[in-house]
Amino acid sequence: MNSFRVNKVLEEMKKLDVDKLLISDPASIFYLTGKWIHPGERMLVLCISLKGKHKLFINELFPVSEDLGIDKVWFNDIDDEVSMLAKYIGKNECIGIDKNWPCKFLLRLMDFLGKDTRFVNGSNLVDKIRMYKDEEEKMFMRKASQLNDMAVDKLINSVDKNLSEKEMSKILLSIYEDLGSEGFSFEPIIAFGKNTADPHHETDKSYVSEGDSVILDIGCMYKSYCSDMTRTVFYKNVSDKYKEIYNIVLEANKRGIAAVKPGVKFSDIDKAARSYIEEKGFSKYFTHRTGHSIGIDVHDLGDVSSANNEIVQPGMIFSIEPGIYLQGDIGVRIEDLVLVTEDGCEVLNKYSKELKVI
Amino acid sequence: MNSFRVNKVLEEMKKLDVDKLLISDPASIFYLTGKWIHPGERMLVLCISLKGKHKLFINELFPVSEDLGIDKVWFNDIDDEVSMLAKYIGKNECIGIDKNWPCKFLLRLMDFLGKDTRFVNGSNLVDKIRMYKDEEEKMFMRKASQLNDMAVDKLINSVDKNLSEKEMSKILLSIYEDLGSEGFSFEPIIAFGKNTADPHHETDKSYVSEGDSVILDIGCMYKSYCSDMTRTVFYKNVSDKYKEIYNIVLEANKRGIAAVKPGVKFSDIDKAARSYIEEKGFSKYFTHRTGHSIGIDVHDLGDVSSANNEIVQPGMIFSIEPGIYLQGDIGVRIEDLVLVTEDGCEVLNKYSKELKVI
Repeated sequence: MNSFRVNKVLEEMKKLDVDKLLISDPASIFYLTGKWIHPGERMLVLCISLKGKHKLFINELFPVSEDLGIDKVWFNDIDDEVSMLAKYIGKNECIGIDKNWPCKFLLRLMDFLGKDTRFVNGSNLVDKIRMYKDEEEKMFMRKASQLNDMAVDKLINSVDKNLSEKEMSKILLSIYEDLGSEGFSFEPIIAFGKNTADPHHETDKSYVSEGDSVILDIGCMYKSYCSDMTRTVFYKNVSDKYKEIYNIVLEANKRGIAAVKPGVKFSDIDKAARSYIEEKGFSKYFTHRTGHSIGIDVHDLGDVSSANNEIVQPGMIFSIEPGIYLQGDIGVRIEDLVLVTEDGCEVLNKYSKELKVI
Repeated sequence: MNSFRVNKVLEEMKKLDVDKLLISDPASIFYLTGKWIHPGERMLVLCISLKGKHKLFINELFPVSEDLGIDKVWFNDIDDEVSMLAKYIGKNECIGIDKNWPCKFLLRLMDFLGKDTRFVNGSNLVDKIRMYKDEEEKMFMRKASQLNDMAVDKLINSVDKNLSEKEMSKILLSIYEDLGSEGFSFEPIIAFGKNTADPHHETDKSYVSEGDSVILDIGCMYKSYCSDMTRTVFYKNVSDKYKEIYNIVLEANKRGIAAVKPGVKFSDIDKAARSYIEEKGFSKYFTHRTGHSIGIDVHDLGDVSSANNEIVQPGMIFSIEPGIYLQGDIGVRIEDLVLVTEDGCEVLNKYSKELKVI
């Protein structure tokens, strides 16, 4: 257990009168214990208690031989694991629940504990702490983005009319492996032509044609930390219209980044990028938030959106990724990760954003 | 909407006094509507109501243009989607909840509806129906296993001392694509030597050596239906000890299959396979259930385990996959899918199980 991090969680629990916190998110368990456990459909719960008797409830199918500095409560597929967990919880306690814990567990736990126990979504207690990266985490995040910069260069140089989006995706995986990363941090979005107009395009068997925009939204993992960047380039030539759209998105990306410093709200950053796109008349074609926090998960807590009025602080890392999408025609998105510093931000992606025809 | 299937769900709801069923599992939504929607962290709920006013709650980020024969309730990232859902639910109703619905949604829904609403795990209402495959589903399952039989043959012929487990996994993906399947139904387990002793081994950069056992636990998708099979072969030669273990597992696999017919319990089938391994003195090395149901999900409802006393009936499809695992030494697992018929079962995997040295 990382006692510094656990103590921070305990401080947050005290503030909100949460007696016990049931953490099931493998990424948060890794954050607090240093150990990845992927239990699939089985229950896995790290129970953090204000009284200090922390426990890890874990199925025997996932042997952990290391001493994680925490008592393990082992169970098997025949045991009633939820009743075992319920025994550790006192009546009238307030229990923080992980946001993504499957309801099958919570509903049974409620049956055991009755209506005197209070259940609240407790994920923020850990997720807010995870937003602030320490020096080691910053190092891993810088390295992951450095590998991503190298990968995007190789990938751009691989674009070829004989390679489908799917084939490009396979090439990218090999590039990441050769660079010593741990593979994809998310299923990459590689899109050609009209496909670029769908921000969530699922990479398919399309081929690139002359004049197409090419979106490469890619990320790898390094020491369990994620990178995530997007570059848009043009194949063989670029029309004036596409050039105009590209330059609007590029300026929005730069304005977003320029707005990043401690003390501003996340919504201010969203506004800095969005208002420029609005000014140019494309507001309804920028259909998503400006960015998201990132760390062990590619989507950490903390959106860069108009709805998030939380204050930006040093150590936070998030994406700035404005885009314009004209259905059936073209999409452009340019994304960098930024690390908030004492007086501004450090951009983790160094790869050129100037308009590129390949 | 597939009204035959929806009516079956409604019948089950009536029996258990469930007024509304909130289905969030994309596989179950596909089963009932014919449409795959992958909402990631966003809410997606198919609300089936005894009163007949079914609704699909869906984020605008996932455009569905088709008429699915159901009212769509659209929301965006700024909307309070859970309060929108709560408005459709009456006080004092009993609400069935999907087993894997993230707690973040349920806890908020409970806040809106107060303590007069009753919440129960409602997944079985759909999952039990999904256990019985109709003629079209049987056809897809047969085809998926037929492709898997072809793939395992090609994969066995690809084993080479210069290919790591990971490289074999990539080869398998290409094989599946060439065969016209939709790719992996699960991340394959390809294990050499000592790695075979871990039933959940994560495929890594290990290479095969002479005398090794080789486990290939693989599956593909066809028309959204899964195959899943395991073969264990030996590289260059096989020791007498390994041969003995192989033959015990093979006989357990055959006994498990021979026990499959309508009217027996799942636990009887588990016993048929397990008792033979026990008899041979390896009981503590067979560390998992004998099998699992399969269909749109690779793990459907219904384990073949000592804890499942449900009755086996025609139309069900599940795996029979006994194994013996000696830590640090060797593992053997042999897995086939079986379809329960009127008087026994049809084995969907035809690929030879006789001991093979390659």
